[in-house]
Amino acid sequence: MEMKPIRCKAVVCRAAGEPLQLEEVVVAPPKAHEARVKIICSTLCQSDITFWRMQGVPGLFPIILGHEAIGVVESVGEGVTEVAAGDVVLPVCLGQCGDCPECSAKRSNLCSVLPFGVFPAAMPRDGTTRFTDAAGEAVHHFLNVSSFSEYTVVDVAHLVKVDQAVPPQVACVLGCGITTGIGATWRAAEVHKGSSVAVFGLGAVGLAVAEGARFLGATKIIGVDINSQKFEIGKKFGVTDFVNPNEIGDRSISEVIKEMTGGGADYCFECVGSSALVTQAFLSSRRGCGKTVILGFDGKGTPITIDPNELLAGRTILGTCIGGVKPKSDIPVLIDHYMNKEIHLDEFITHEIGFSEINKAFDLLIQGKSIKCIMWMDK
Amino acid sequence: MEMKPIRCKAVVCRAAGEPLQLEEVVVAPPKAHEARVKIICSTLCQSDITFWRMQGVPGLFPIILGHEAIGVVESVGEGVTEVAAGDVVLPVCLGQCGDCPECSAKRSNLCSVLPFGVFPAAMPRDGTTRFTDAAGEAVHHFLNVSSFSEYTVVDVAHLVKVDQAVPPQVACVLGCGITTGIGATWRAAEVHKGSSVAVFGLGAVGLAVAEGARFLGATKIIGVDINSQKFEIGKKFGVTDFVNPNEIGDRSISEVIKEMTGGGADYCFECVGSSALVTQAFLSSRRGCGKTVILGFDGKGTPITIDPNELLAGRTILGTCIGGVKPKSDIPVLIDHYMNKEIHLDEFITHEIGFSEINKAFDLLIQGKSIKCIMWMDK
Repeated sequence: MEMKPIRCKAVVCRAAGEPLQLEEVVVAPPKAHEARVKIICSTLCQSDITFWRMQGVPGLFPIILGHEAIGVVESVGEGVTEVAAGDVVLPVCLGQCGDCPECSAKRSNLCSVLPFGVFPAAMPRDGTTRFTDAAGEAVHHFLNVSSFSEYTVVDVAHLVKVDQAVPPQVACVLGCGITTGIGATWRAAEVHKGSSVAVFGLGAVGLAVAEGARFLGATKIIGVDINSQKFEIGKKFGVTDFVNPNEIGDRSISEVIKEMTGGGADYCFECVGSSALVTQAFLSSRRGCGKTVILGFDGKGTPITIDPNELLAGRTILGTCIGGVKPKSDIPVLIDHYMNKEIHLDEFITHEIGFSEINKAFDLLIQGKSIKCIMWMDK
Repeated sequence: MEMKPIRCKAVVCRAAGEPLQLEEVVVAPPKAHEARVKIICSTLCQSDITFWRMQGVPGLFPIILGHEAIGVVESVGEGVTEVAAGDVVLPVCLGQCGDCPECSAKRSNLCSVLPFGVFPAAMPRDGTTRFTDAAGEAVHHFLNVSSFSEYTVVDVAHLVKVDQAVPPQVACVLGCGITTGIGATWRAAEVHKGSSVAVFGLGAVGLAVAEGARFLGATKIIGVDINSQKFEIGKKFGVTDFVNPNEIGDRSISEVIKEMTGGGADYCFECVGSSALVTQAFLSSRRGCGKTVILGFDGKGTPITIDPNELLAGRTILGTCIGGVKPKSDIPVLIDHYMNKEIHLDEFITHEIGFSEINKAFDLLIQGKSIKCIMWMDK
């Protein structure tokens, strides 16, 4: 049976920062190693906004953004056996081929067959796109997912199979940010029972860090945010203490955190993407064993500066992609924890709207009013 | 029996960079938690030279330097049961009280009861010195050891008991630098079998890193040094490949190492203390899992700059004190490995002289002609 292109609705972003609108696109059939997926619902991650705003990136626009979503396999390419039509799948920006040295070893989650990155902004194996617009122009993919479309094509190395019993909007939030936050406590930092944790920035990723730390048994979880309302929200995810950097007078954040933790937090997580804040997080970490994990990304790449003597005092600073999680092996574990009521995920979902209201989802996130706003395709 | 002060010979450093000479000092009896130790032999670590040269450090001079040595307990202070007169002991700059949260946990080697540091440049518990010179002036201690004296007083938390069967000059080299290098591969980086390692700076610490990596099964060990003769020396300690930064034309060290390792070394060790070299080491490490360990210390504290995007690609940078080793628990393990002929230590000893020739030991190290020059007290 020959597979046909599908004509459907998608949001094509054509220039940095412009309001988004639905238009018709054509989604080509999947090739070898690929599946075409009908999206059930999407949500929004801060990186969608970062790239939507990003000026002067050659070869990025036009693009279909969106990389946190869940869907159903509509059809698969030649030779694909890993998933089949009707399977519920979570597309993930990070690939896991399963065979390369990195996928085979515990210590890395960056597949070397399908390297992580925004470019080629197309299918990872052949570098071509499966989207064309009404004028016949190729439209780029985003982070191997492009979920702001009724249908998308995803490489099977980027698909995690999900049991039908899992509420789709819940699995959906595990696509990137929440997995990054929880994963960073689990896979990257390996937070230990009874430890102290400081979380810089209580957006979705920071709240997920708190939730992961709570689950792993941290007893002091300090939220740091310039919006004091985040303390109440954070309490749902295990935040026990709070620092508003605008309300500590002349003292530095690290001084305050060192005092609150009797010398420094065992684990610090920077979830904003500010290099100055990374330095504060690093200085807030405990001598001899403090680990600072960098999760924030603002796209500017301002260098991080570190005092070598503070580093030599037994401190570690590390960065990860998606919290060091291997998508296919680790996301099902997180789903199990949710189904066993061990971790909170429903609480991250603050809004549910229809896909056509996507600009509202952007506004809510930009204004800090939502954690995760689910956009249902059938609404 | 009342213990008496001992009058003996010591090298007192009175001003930065001045030639060293023997003079008579008085060594007070040990107090509670302390032992007075008769030094058998000492060697020289780069940090002795760094502090000997260091200008403008208030409260440092006069000082008895030296912190890599072995000796015999002459007497112990009140209530000391851990060691007794006649025991062979290795004094170590880093303390291990054994009871504090840090000593009790695996993740830190920085005892919180006896914090590591150059100051108070005296006994760690009461902040007074046990040395006085002929004029009756107090002479400072260095790093809790001060081995450039026939007798010294050391807190028992800083003493590792050594079996009499171990050649003293061999145990002596485990006092700081060699333990730092081997320890960094074992406790800090946890080098894995079949991995690739790049070592920046092939002094004693760098060569010990190579030896540790060899022992742990690394298959590619790249030495980086501006002295190409270090390649031959390095081969004794497992160095398989070599880069002289002055002989790579316009290419950066990290470009060369990435090419040699097919994308970056699994582990990079900076053993020079140059912040610019730390950046190169970091950039030489592999995406997804590369660890850069900082061991070098030059006392200048030039900030290290790091590209956040390179960090987010799954890289780690960490610093340690003495390679993350817990002295009392880990140095005996290294000694066992030596006695079982699993690690090479004899090969680090390039010169043996009498203590009165100490200026020669300084010259040999400064000129890069020695790895470890043993200074025997009885010669």
